[in-house]
Order: sequence, then C-alpha cells, then structure tokens
Amino acid sequence: MRTVHVPASVPYDVEIGPGLLPSLGGVLRQSCPGAGRYVLVTDSTVAPLWAAAAQKGLDDRGLAGDIFVLPAGEESKTAARLTEILNFAAARGLTRSDALVALGGGMVGDITGLAAAVYMRGIRYVQVPTTLLAAVDSSVGGKTAVDLPAGKNLMGAFWQPRHVLCDTDALTTLPEADFASGCAEVIKTALLFDEDLFSLLEREGPDFPLEEVIARCVIHKRDVVAEDERDTGRRALLNLGHTLGHAVEAESGYTLSHGEAVAIGMATVCRAAAAYGFCAAALPGRVEALLKRFGLPARAGVPLDTLMGRMLSDKKRSGNMVSVIVPEDIGRCDTRPMDRAALYDFMKAGI
Amino acid sequence: MRTVHVPASVPYDVEIGPGLLPSLGGVLRQSCPGAGRYVLVTDSTVAPLWAAAAQKGLDDRGLAGDIFVLPAGEESKTAARLTEILNFAAARGLTRSDALVALGGGMVGDITGLAAAVYMRGIRYVQVPTTLLAAVDSSVGGKTAVDLPAGKNLMGAFWQPRHVLCDTDALTTLPEADFASGCAEVIKTALLFDEDLFSLLEREGPDFPLEEVIARCVIHKRDVVAEDERDTGRRALLNLGHTLGHAVEAESGYTLSHGEAVAIGMATVCRAAAAYGFCAAALPGRVEALLKRFGLPARAGVPLDTLMGRMLSDKKRSGNMVSVIVPEDIGRCDTRPMDRAALYDFMKAGI
Repeated sequence: MRTVHVPASVPYDVEIGPGLLPSLGGVLRQSCPGAGRYVLVTDSTVAPLWAAAAQKGLDDRGLAGDIFVLPAGEESKTAARLTEILNFAAARGLTRSDALVALGGGMVGDITGLAAAVYMRGIRYVQVPTTLLAAVDSSVGGKTAVDLPAGKNLMGAFWQPRHVLCDTDALTTLPEADFASGCAEVIKTALLFDEDLFSLLEREGPDFPLEEVIARCVIHKRDVVAEDERDTGRRALLNLGHTLGHAVEAESGYTLSHGEAVAIGMATVCRAAAAYGFCAAALPGRVEALLKRFGLPARAGVPLDTLMGRMLSDKKRSGNMVSVIVPEDIGRCDTRPMDRAALYDFMKAGI
Repeated sequence: MRTVHVPASVPYDVEIGPGLLPSLGGVLRQSCPGAGRYVLVTDSTVAPLWAAAAQKGLDDRGLAGDIFVLPAGEESKTAARLTEILNFAAARGLTRSDALVALGGGMVGDITGLAAAVYMRGIRYVQVPTTLLAAVDSSVGGKTAVDLPAGKNLMGAFWQPRHVLCDTDALTTLPEADFASGCAEVIKTALLFDEDLFSLLEREGPDFPLEEVIARCVIHKRDVVAEDERDTGRRALLNLGHTLGHAVEAESGYTLSHGEAVAIGMATVCRAAAAYGFCAAALPGRVEALLKRFGLPARAGVPLDTLMGRMLSDKKRSGNMVSVIVPEDIGRCDTRPMDRAALYDFMKAGI
C-alpha cells in the first residue's frame, strides 16, 4: 500500500493498494471526524460489484447511511441528477457534519464532489475511484462538475475530498476499453513529466505494476496542481492532447472515449512538434508505438477543417489565443499560445 | 456616498448612496478587469423599475450583455431556476473572465451569487441590492444559496461579490412591507452590536437616514463575518431571533415575511431573557416599542408546542443542542446552547 499526501488548501491523503475497500469506515471516521451519517453515491455498473462491500465497511464502524445509484454513463452528469442527490441527502437528514462518499469512475466522482461542495454550502466527502482514469486523474485537483447542454463541466466548483481510497482490486474488474482510457492518462503523465515512467510503460506494457504507476501519476499531478490550485497557470500542462482531443471527442458524438480522444490529440501534437523541430524527429514514433501497445488510437481520421470550430470554442481559450501544450522531449512539455492561423498550420502538420 | 471596505478572502467595497446605478458600468470595469460580457439577473418586480438604467450604465462603458428575468418571489429560488441561469449564460457565450450582475433583493442576490460560484467553477459577480434587507444582510457574508424541497438554503456556496453597489434611490421604491422587513434586520443589528444605532432608530423612526444606517449595519456585519467567514463561531450571533423566527415563518406557510418572523423571534427571546434575569427587566419593553414603531409584530400568536419540532430541526442545530442568541443589554448579546427541555422552558417564558 502506498500513501500520497496532497497538500491542497484542505490537505488529504490518497491511499493506493489492493484490498482497501473494507477499511472505508475507518477512513471516513478518521478523515471526517464527527460524521455520523453518510450518503454513498455510485452508478448502476459499480453498485452490484462494490457497493455492498463499501457499505459493510461503513456500517462496521457504526456509520449509518444510504446509497444513491445513478444510471451509469456520462449522460447522468447533469444538474438535474445533482439536484436529485441533494434532495436525497436532505430527505435522509444529512447534516453539515456528515459526509458523502463517491464510489465509481470520473462521472460519479465529479457529480458527488459538486454535491458535497454545494450541500449546505459545503460538506466533506471521501472519494473511492473504481476506474484507472478516476484514480490517476480525478483524485487530485479538486475539480468537480456536471455538464450543461452548452458544454461539458460548465457547472462546477473547486472542492477537495478529505480522503481518496483507491482499491486496486476494483480496477481489475474494468472493461478493457475503460482500462485503455485510463492508460491514455498515464501515458500523458509520463510524456509530460517522467521519462522513467514512460520507459517502464514501454517495458511492461499493459501489465504494468498498478500501485506504483498510479502513485507516480498522482504525485506528478499533485505537484503541478500544488503550484496552481485554481488552474490559472502551470496546471494548463495537464491539457496535453486536449485541444484537438476534445474536438475529436465531440465530433465523434462521444463514441470515442475521453482516453482515446486524448491519445489522438497527444499523437497529433507530437507529430506536429517534430515537424516544427520543437522536439526530436523520433519522438512521435515512440509515442505512437506506446499508444498502439495499449490499444489506443493515434490518428483523428477526420479532416482538420471540421475540428477547427470546436477547438476555438474550447473553455481554455483566452481572447483569440489557444494555448497548445507541445512536447519538447519525453518528460518535458511547454505551453505555446497560438492564434487561429498558427493553430491551423500547427495541427495541419500533425493530423 | 459612503464606502465600506470588506476584507473577505476576496476583498471588495460596498458603496452606499443615492444615484449610484448609472455608475454600474464603471464599477464592473474596475472590479472585474478583463470582463467583456455580462449577464444581469433580476426579477419581474425590479426589472421594469431598474433594469433599463442598469443596462444603460453597463452599455455606456462598452460592456455587452443580456438580462435574465426571474419571476418575483421566493418560489424562484430553486435549483431548476439556477440551472436556467447557467444555461442562459452558457448559450450567450459567457466566459470565465466575464461577470454576472445581481439586480434585486435577497432572492436575486442569493441565486445569482450561487450561479457565479458554480458557472465554470466560479466567475466574478457584482451585487446591486434593491431592498433594505438585501442591502444590510446579503451584501456581506458571501452566503449564496437556493432552496431545496426539504428546506431553505440547503444548496449553496460561500462566494464573495467583487463589488456591492447600493443605490439608496432604489430602496425608496420598496413596498412598505418589504421596507419593514429590512427594518427588522436593522433593529436586530442594533440590538446585537450598537446601542447608539438603537437610540438613533428610536429617535428618528422609519425616516432614519438610509445611507448612514445601512453603512453602520454593513460595518457591524463585516466585522463579525471577518472573524468567522465560514460560519463556525461568532457569526452565529447574527441568528438572533432566528431559532423561533424560522419556526414561526414556516408555521405561517411563509405568509409572514422573514423580517416579521425575526421581529417576533427577537421580542420573544428578549422577554425570556428578562424573565430569566439575563438582561434588565426594561429591555423587552424598549425592543417591543421600537418594533411597533416600525410596524413589526412582537408576538408569535401560535402555541409553543406547535413550534418545537421546527426549532429542533434547525440547520444550525449541532447534536442535541440548539444555540440560542440571548440579549444581555441593548448592543450586547451572547450565545447559550440549550437542550430540548431547556429550550422549551426558555421560550415558554417569552412567548
């Protein structure tokens, strides 16, 4: 078992290892002192697998609570579902000193975190990620959100969990596509910050040691977020592959997973960066080979012109400039602001 | 014109005086640098009176924006209306660097503040209170919220405005009952913190100097909130009259205004405090006389037994104890935790 301490505005620990779920009650008691009740939010995929074990862990420590099950899928990440969770908690008498538990992937973590942020103006919550993507991405950073009709994550808050309990046993029950999606995030982290991790992934392939790799990713994300909790500067690096990735994901009508879309975005900026001489000519080949080994795509397969509009309406846009994260080497990337014309030419070189 | 500086986690100014509305554009430019667009949220009562002047003030300074009009009344303070505001802002292309404007009373301020807190994980907003209650109560403290079916203000956030522009001309168009409701809050502030202010109100009656009295109330609230921004200690004093007040308000089916309910709550604890010897025997008479002069009630008119359940389900409850704010003198109050039996006996002595 590994523990990563996250010194956010409210500091907390991320625990990673097998067989941790039964300790959930003790974790909640310790990280949310004074809490007597909980509402555990999960989804219809995760509930039959893990909800009973989670609830037993809580009940064993004398905590009383209820389970709220969302329909699985990103379609549940709405303001209406958020309100349902809040009404459920209020009807069950959850007070300011009680806590929420998020048991699931990114969707469950995002909506539960926001529910915790706004219930009675903010209560505590514990996150139990059950996907690789949630473990490496959502467990650090405090970003909570639901989607609006006009776009993803448009309603949200910065709100830190009091503890993240990552039971790696839960990740082994993932469908293959979900696992690959998480791997895209792991590869992104390696490409951004950690050549050793990149080499480890090349060496081990999809059988990489879960506990070690998740801990390394969490540490990298923690360090970049610590410098920039409210996401106004260096944290933008985490958007590597996202400018084109978001556009490709939306253009596919969300038939591409977020991980697949980010993989395509990463590979594209790598090819473009090599063409512009920002990185070595061999870099894109190495990235593409690793993506392929993890069953991830590297080509958009749609013309750039259909993606431009979406790229320019990105939430990260500031004025007329889009910040593109560009690799300089494995483990080192930089931010380059581009206007519409520069963005077009750059992406054209990589697509 | 008076300016009160509020050193909240994000510091801002409250400006109070006549004829300020036309300066809204300059205020927004200065307090939200970089904002290009706005969405102004108001209600159907305020819109015909003040929206055009507000929008002209904004447009004159080159700001572009749209107006969102809520149906007047507390019934609009819902999660569904909040989502409508967010969707409206998103559809109009409001970005992270843009701002919201709240033009109205407490309902408009509360829901708009929450919209600002959660739109794209938090954008800036300017508050333009148009009721006395909003001017003295909601413009300091950062409490934003909407109601849930299970109770008032159960969904919310702490989020500070970037500026509060209180045009006292707008307050003179208030219906008399709304004005009296605000006066209850002013009398509460005087009873809590300021014997001079209490004497001024006794001397001047309802024709008190608006600008001076609002500024004094804002300063008192600022000082108590500054010590306790997240409402865990001394800020509880502001709940003077609220334990019984909330119960009376709910029991009336909200036919009593919040101000009337707080007036009844205040008068009741004053009578009880005198009966228990916590304050001078003459204090309740002086408070009741002032309330009467402002057209405010002083007696619940319902039996205590019907109110007990509501008092014990108060959000401020912690464990089995309810904190009751008890006057010791005009301008000085204290918090006394009471269990169910003690609360019953105490309120019985005052009702």
